[in-house]
Amino acid sequence: MQQFHKMDKLQIAQINKYNVIRCLMRESPINRAAIARRLGLSIPTVMFITETLLNSNFIRSIGKGVSSGGKPPEMLEIVPERFFYIGLDIGRTMIRATAVNAVSRQVACLEEPTNNPAPEKRFVDRIAAIILKIAGRLKTENDRILGAGIAMPGLIEKETGAVLFSPDFGWNNIPLQEWLTAKIPFPVLVENANRALALNEVFLMEGETSHTTFAVNLGYGIGAALVIGEDLYTGASGTSGEIGHITASAQGPVCHCGNRGCLEAVASGAAIAAQGKSVLESRGASKIRELAAGDPENVDAALVFRACELGDKEAARIVNTAAEYIGIGLSMAINVLDPDRLVLCGGLMRNGPFFLEKIKSSIGTHRMRQAGRAVVISTGRGGEYSTANGACRVLSNSLWWNRKLPV
Amino acid sequence: MQQFHKMDKLQIAQINKYNVIRCLMRESPINRAAIARRLGLSIPTVMFITETLLNSNFIRSIGKGVSSGGKPPEMLEIVPERFFYIGLDIGRTMIRATAVNAVSRQVACLEEPTNNPAPEKRFVDRIAAIILKIAGRLKTENDRILGAGIAMPGLIEKETGAVLFSPDFGWNNIPLQEWLTAKIPFPVLVENANRALALNEVFLMEGETSHTTFAVNLGYGIGAALVIGEDLYTGASGTSGEIGHITASAQGPVCHCGNRGCLEAVASGAAIAAQGKSVLESRGASKIRELAAGDPENVDAALVFRACELGDKEAARIVNTAAEYIGIGLSMAINVLDPDRLVLCGGLMRNGPFFLEKIKSSIGTHRMRQAGRAVVISTGRGGEYSTANGACRVLSNSLWWNRKLPV
Repeated sequence: MQQFHKMDKLQIAQINKYNVIRCLMRESPINRAAIARRLGLSIPTVMFITETLLNSNFIRSIGKGVSSGGKPPEMLEIVPERFFYIGLDIGRTMIRATAVNAVSRQVACLEEPTNNPAPEKRFVDRIAAIILKIAGRLKTENDRILGAGIAMPGLIEKETGAVLFSPDFGWNNIPLQEWLTAKIPFPVLVENANRALALNEVFLMEGETSHTTFAVNLGYGIGAALVIGEDLYTGASGTSGEIGHITASAQGPVCHCGNRGCLEAVASGAAIAAQGKSVLESRGASKIRELAAGDPENVDAALVFRACELGDKEAARIVNTAAEYIGIGLSMAINVLDPDRLVLCGGLMRNGPFFLEKIKSSIGTHRMRQAGRAVVISTGRGGEYSTANGACRVLSNSLWWNRKLPV
Repeated sequence: MQQFHKMDKLQIAQINKYNVIRCLMRESPINRAAIARRLGLSIPTVMFITETLLNSNFIRSIGKGVSSGGKPPEMLEIVPERFFYIGLDIGRTMIRATAVNAVSRQVACLEEPTNNPAPEKRFVDRIAAIILKIAGRLKTENDRILGAGIAMPGLIEKETGAVLFSPDFGWNNIPLQEWLTAKIPFPVLVENANRALALNEVFLMEGETSHTTFAVNLGYGIGAALVIGEDLYTGASGTSGEIGHITASAQGPVCHCGNRGCLEAVASGAAIAAQGKSVLESRGASKIRELAAGDPENVDAALVFRACELGDKEAARIVNTAAEYIGIGLSMAINVLDPDRLVLCGGLMRNGPFFLEKIKSSIGTHRMRQAGRAVVISTGRGGEYSTANGACRVLSNSLWWNRKLPV
């Protein structure tokens, strides 16, 4: 019977206050009458709420706007530097950190290669140091930093932010959030990287209405997240979105998750690189060998894509097979989830538009006729820092929904 | 910016009224003070609402309950025969019709073989006749019948209830809801059959909390539906849940949907029957031949299951392969959706518990380690009329959410 919602005056007041903040975040500068119209609230209600927000220095007046007849209205805006969020994208190849201000603008960023993530304790010390480094760049008091969101590939325990299992990192049951919280003077929240990315991509769609967005991260690994409206779908235990570990080819190669023939084992950046290396090692002349100067260690997914564009047949076979399997996986998502946005992100999508076309062609073959009629397929807009910026959004959303903004 | 929710007093009053009705539906007989406690409402508010409901004959007093100290309280209950819902399950093999009363109890049912569903116009006339037949059994005025829910396999257009595409019936763009509405003196609502089934199975779980239920219909075809909390997930265009048409085997047989290697083409009741027929036609002595008395027309999925239980090797291969593929499909659902309930329904599940065990074993092999940790896998509880009763729930939910109950 969890569905009973009793609404009382206090809840209504809080919903109204957060709606005013949301309106200010999206439409600043804006005057009180416009807020009242936008939200269907009375002018006195809006005046009471904006007074509170002005007193806590959350918003400020920027003077008079243009009059539409009477007295020119006072224009209000969120104080951008009132507080900040930090976001980290802990990828298997690169670690990226970002800081965004109260109006979601990125104000600092840094990146460094991930290198060896073992032993875990030492690696987590490094992550803590990166958080403090980006925080230092803000030159602000710690209490203006509302927290750090950490985007981590793998299965994250919902309640604790522990990493249950990360095939990319070979981690099992690492209490990442707990370890970081002990080292950092502001809140830390660990979430799955694909979810952070999806949240940011949906944020960047602002203005476009979206019913359901399925965002897929095609990089070193393959993962996804579902956003319904503006809310993350997390699943019952917090592990949803693992499209990289659906069985794409029952007789396929063993995946680093332990199962056989996962999508990630046949179509991820790691799988493409491994297949490229094996071509170099087992065959004679090829563009792959040429571009890698004969050294298998130089073969990564991007190199296989370049060899494909230069007309290498083996590279083309690898890329085409990957696109075919990715298309099968995404057709599954279209048939089962019927999203209206399918956003393809991650390193694999930065190898030129032909890969997107190949994937779309595979989807055309494998999706059910008439299923997912509303779906628009596109590449992500957020660039290399999309996941890190999304980690900031994970944190700000959590504060938002738990009504814990300092207002 | 569809997320702004302005709450006004009228909305609050309506939420409270519907919460009181819901409380009465689930916990009748119940007294006013208990309702107030359950919902956190004031006694005067509950008194005002119950007065309205008594006046419209929606609820009634059944006398005094047991006192907990003071005056014995007046006990209230929903009037069961105040109104009814009709539900139809239009399956490829059987059509089942049901009527439930205001407290969701089945009060009438009937079934007949589907036979040839062509031409569509004539078939729809037959469906209309079945609706009127079951309505007639209620011996009540038409205005007490709030409507008929129609559960139909295939892709249904959300806004119009038209059947966009039904591979089972070979239908394309049949305006089923429009045609039926013209023939029936109460509202008609067409929804996908797997959704109706899922709603009923979630209803039958009452008392158990469920975050996300993924209900799969393994019958003549294969379909599924996702229920989040108690609400159907429909997808952006209304076509979600088509797990039967994910690509299970890229080189597999052509499916009646037109694609190749769909789960439905390798593991549905129709696929199992087709494989059984082909064994009978191409091989010598077998339990399949024996049970079918040599006639391929007698081979259906149930017969193949019986042959399997009698030790027939070819039948076992067919059943094992189906279970293996179904397990791959359901592992996908676990990895991507992370449900806490996976409910397996439909005719294939009525062939003995060994099939469930085989499916579970395949899931054990193919699901990602640690993904979907909360999932409980079980068979459906609703029996053969689960989809038809679910069709009633589709209708009652629609009236509920649109606040169109006659109160």
